[in-house]
Amino acid sequence: MSRSTSISGQPCIATSQTRLTISQVMGPADVNLMGTVHGGVILRLIDTLAGVVSARFSHGSAVTAFVDEVAFVAAAHVGDVVHASAQVNWAGSTSMEVGVRVLADRWDETVAPVHVVGAYLVMVAVDDLGRPRPVPRVQPGTPDDARRFDAAVRRRERRLARRR
Amino acid sequence: MSRSTSISGQPCIATSQTRLTISQVMGPADVNLMGTVHGGVILRLIDTLAGVVSARFSHGSAVTAFVDEVAFVAAAHVGDVVHASAQVNWAGSTSMEVGVRVLADRWDETVAPVHVVGAYLVMVAVDDLGRPRPVPRVQPGTPDDARRFDAAVRRRERRLARRR
Amino acid sequence: MSRSTSISGQPCIATSQTRLTISQVMGPADVNLMGTVHGGVILRLIDTLAGVVSARFSHGSAVTAFVDEVAFVAAAHVGDVVHASAQVNWAGSTSMEVGVRVLADRWDETVAPVHVVGAYLVMVAVDDLGRPRPVPRVQPGTPDDARRFDAAVRRRERRLARRR
Amino acid sequence: MSRSTSISGQPCIATSQTRLTISQVMGPADVNLMGTVHGGVILRLIDTLAGVVSARFSHGSAVTAFVDEVAFVAAAHVGDVVHASAQVNWAGSTSMEVGVRVLADRWDETVAPVHVVGAYLVMVAVDDLGRPRPVPRVQPGTPDDARRFDAAVRRRERRLARRR
Amino acid sequence: MSRSTSISGQPCIATSQTRLTISQVMGPADVNLMGTVHGGVILRLIDTLAGVVSARFSHGSAVTAFVDEVAFVAAAHVGDVVHASAQVNWAGSTSMEVGVRVLADRWDETVAPVHVVGAYLVMVAVDDLGRPRPVPRVQPGTPDDARRFDAAVRRRERRLARRR
Amino acid sequence: MSRSTSISGQPCIATSQTRLTISQVMGPADVNLMGTVHGGVILRLIDTLAGVVSARFSHGSAVTAFVDEVAFVAAAHVGDVVHASAQVNWAGSTSMEVGVRVLADRWDETVAPVHVVGAYLVMVAVDDLGRPRPVPRVQPGTPDDARRFDAAVRRRERRLARRR
Repeated sequence: MSRSTSISGQPCIATSQTRLTISQVMGPADVNLMGTVHGGVILRLIDTLAGVVSARFSHGSAVTAFVDEVAFVAAAHVGDVVHASAQVNWAGSTSMEVGVRVLADRWDETVAPVHVVGAYLVMVAVDDLGRPRPVPRVQPGTPDDARRFDAAVRRRERRLARRR
Repeated sequence: MSRSTSISGQPCIATSQTRLTISQVMGPADVNLMGTVHGGVILRLIDTLAGVVSARFSHGSAVTAFVDEVAFVAAAHVGDVVHASAQVNWAGSTSMEVGVRVLADRWDETVAPVHVVGAYLVMVAVDDLGRPRPVPRVQPGTPDDARRFDAAVRRRERRLARRR
Repeated sequence: MSRSTSISGQPCIATSQTRLTISQVMGPADVNLMGTVHGGVILRLIDTLAGVVSARFSHGSAVTAFVDEVAFVAAAHVGDVVHASAQVNWAGSTSMEVGVRVLADRWDETVAPVHVVGAYLVMVAVDDLGRPRPVPRVQPGTPDDARRFDAAVRRRERRLARRR
Repeated sequence: MSRSTSISGQPCIATSQTRLTISQVMGPADVNLMGTVHGGVILRLIDTLAGVVSARFSHGSAVTAFVDEVAFVAAAHVGDVVHASAQVNWAGSTSMEVGVRVLADRWDETVAPVHVVGAYLVMVAVDDLGRPRPVPRVQPGTPDDARRFDAAVRRRERRLARRR
Repeated sequence: MSRSTSISGQPCIATSQTRLTISQVMGPADVNLMGTVHGGVILRLIDTLAGVVSARFSHGSAVTAFVDEVAFVAAAHVGDVVHASAQVNWAGSTSMEVGVRVLADRWDETVAPVHVVGAYLVMVAVDDLGRPRPVPRVQPGTPDDARRFDAAVRRRERRLARRR
Repeated sequence: MSRSTSISGQPCIATSQTRLTISQVMGPADVNLMGTVHGGVILRLIDTLAGVVSARFSHGSAVTAFVDEVAFVAAAHVGDVVHASAQVNWAGSTSMEVGVRVLADRWDETVAPVHVVGAYLVMVAVDDLGRPRPVPRVQPGTPDDARRFDAAVRRRERRLARRR
């Protein structure tokens, strides 16, 4: 990742440089009682990916603080290759919003990958004692990333409003 | 569960009768890179429990449609007994909101159980072909359950508003 | 747990305060070749629970020394919520007998939970070097717990007689 | 296995022909909170082996009915090769007693394998509907196997006496 | 995948269209006794990927017949994102050679991904009864893919020569 | 293992003393999408066994450097007892070739164990920093072991030739 330094002294990283995709073949041990992939398997995959993306972005450990708006659109099946993609949508002083999108790739080439689930996770960067620590700033480089940045700010405001 | 029948023809079940608690000892294989319990392990536990609670309530299969407002308040540790409790907060025609609360019980008796995470999941009852099917109505029997019912309605309205 | 101190200098804890129940949803990965839940899955659950109950009671680590009279009464099935309950039936100078009872809760509400298995485990409290260390005394507070205490003493005598 | 036929019409199999040993390397995921191998891992191994031995002997499925006198003599460690050996000690009309002995082989060649645990399991042969079905008779061929046969009969008598 | 049909009647697919990458975060349960990632975890990942790539290419099931020249160049560590990429290098009448390359992506951005292992697997397309069935032809579209095709042919000749 | 000392100062160990067999019951979680045992499960078993055999032979840690000529001859099935046997075929200054042979034992006694797979692995002995360290010499004691020693030398020459 190339970097510039922001006024706050924290480096500034382009949103596009925070992206990561992990992919996994769904196996027979991943099913629920209905024979489709267990939602919990997908949730665990999402959480693992958000952990890696936020740890890389913040150069240290990060823990999950909030999982928001996980919308299951379709089921994944055994044999599907599930692709989970994530990026840092927004970063504050010690927390980050990571957006995750999961697609399932079926065997049959004539079918486009299926959108399985989308999710937003708030991750907090922590030091060895578990205390919050400063994170870099994120710089949206495209209109899409700017839109996602703004939506993350609105989600954050809604969360703060609900807490009051 | 005792039952009465509502105007819609669907039976009516008291919220208190939908409650279920599952408990699990956190083992060495459940940790993340920081040595605390992987958020994904907790998310999977939550999803499993919501699946069972909604399937029992609706007398058939149910799938996760939405996971909302999962707030991680504290970390769980290896050796903790983690108790996850859930109930059907609200039920519509084919969907239900299940509220889940996870506590971690430490070894030391002088410490009260720690609130680890709370979550709301929207589950949809489905038939063998995966099509939505009708669910019973839920009847809050206490002021607390009535408050949770109302909060579930508001969360539903917010979700519908966001989708527009 | 509230405590009083016995003549031996070790605190004395009521049997009822040593009780713990853990519950788990049986999944597709837990089956044997016949499609019912693997006995080994149940045995592992029992051993884990006895380890936690004896470690809490004795304020430290405890290891399994003996597993006795594990009677499988019925099979558990995938989808069952299995509840395992345990308590310290008897405590000697460094060892404890933990009684465990496992029930399986079926989907269908018209069926009472099924008694799956009962077991007695002798646990030994150990220090960091694995050497036995003193444990509290247990005080049965009800006729049932007194009966269990006496039965544990008889099981212990039988084990000692067999060893000779 | 070579066979002769007994008066009951069931074939007769020599004890020595029922023996089976399985061996497994203990890995980092098998430990308990003290860093030694989880007793539940050993119990699961024992139950799996007894299931295979009794199913082969009885030419069909078999389920665990009783686990008796599991004596943990020593702990197994990560990296040990654990050898579990079993044989049919005794066979009745539909049930069998399987004796299991577990040894742990340490890395260091100067140490003889450590006796970790011994156990006796009563297995019941079942048909596709789970009903008991007849099993072969077992013929002890050595003084040791005759002694084990007699000890199994005594254990059975003790179990029946306790149940009354 | 776009397709043309070869003289043999089997469709012809460009090598580049057979490529697939799966990525996985290495977790604490994946380590060997030295604290690095277990070679067996990597081998299983390779085999899973080759199974998916060959099944997609051949539109049906495929089984592993031969694993050749798996060269471990470096170790993977817990926390690495491991990327495994594969393609069909060569296809015969019923068998295919799949080449796999595994890279490990470290946390530290200043280090390029590490080449962990390369491998060649011969997969056989099978029908429901496990009998070999015809596979498409593969068409190398770049000099690199042509070189890999030729190397696969040479490996095949060496294997046939060794068998004699 | 009994030992003599070779000219190089390293002890000399008979091939027969390096042999080890591990056996495992294939369970329902080990299957691939076709219902037979996942090749990756077998590969992991092979790698684990080669790790133990080479670590014992060399009195320390050993890592997999190369996996060669893994020939899958038949499929293993759920319920099979899979026996993997290995020995050190050849040893150089810091590396060893381990030969592994896997048999599957079916339920039916009338069928001899099935040869599932054979494999050759090159293992390197390493110290705590991962640097190669000297290993004992191996002494073939039978014509078969001498033949395997020579074949290992030829495989090594082929690998070195290919690398050039």
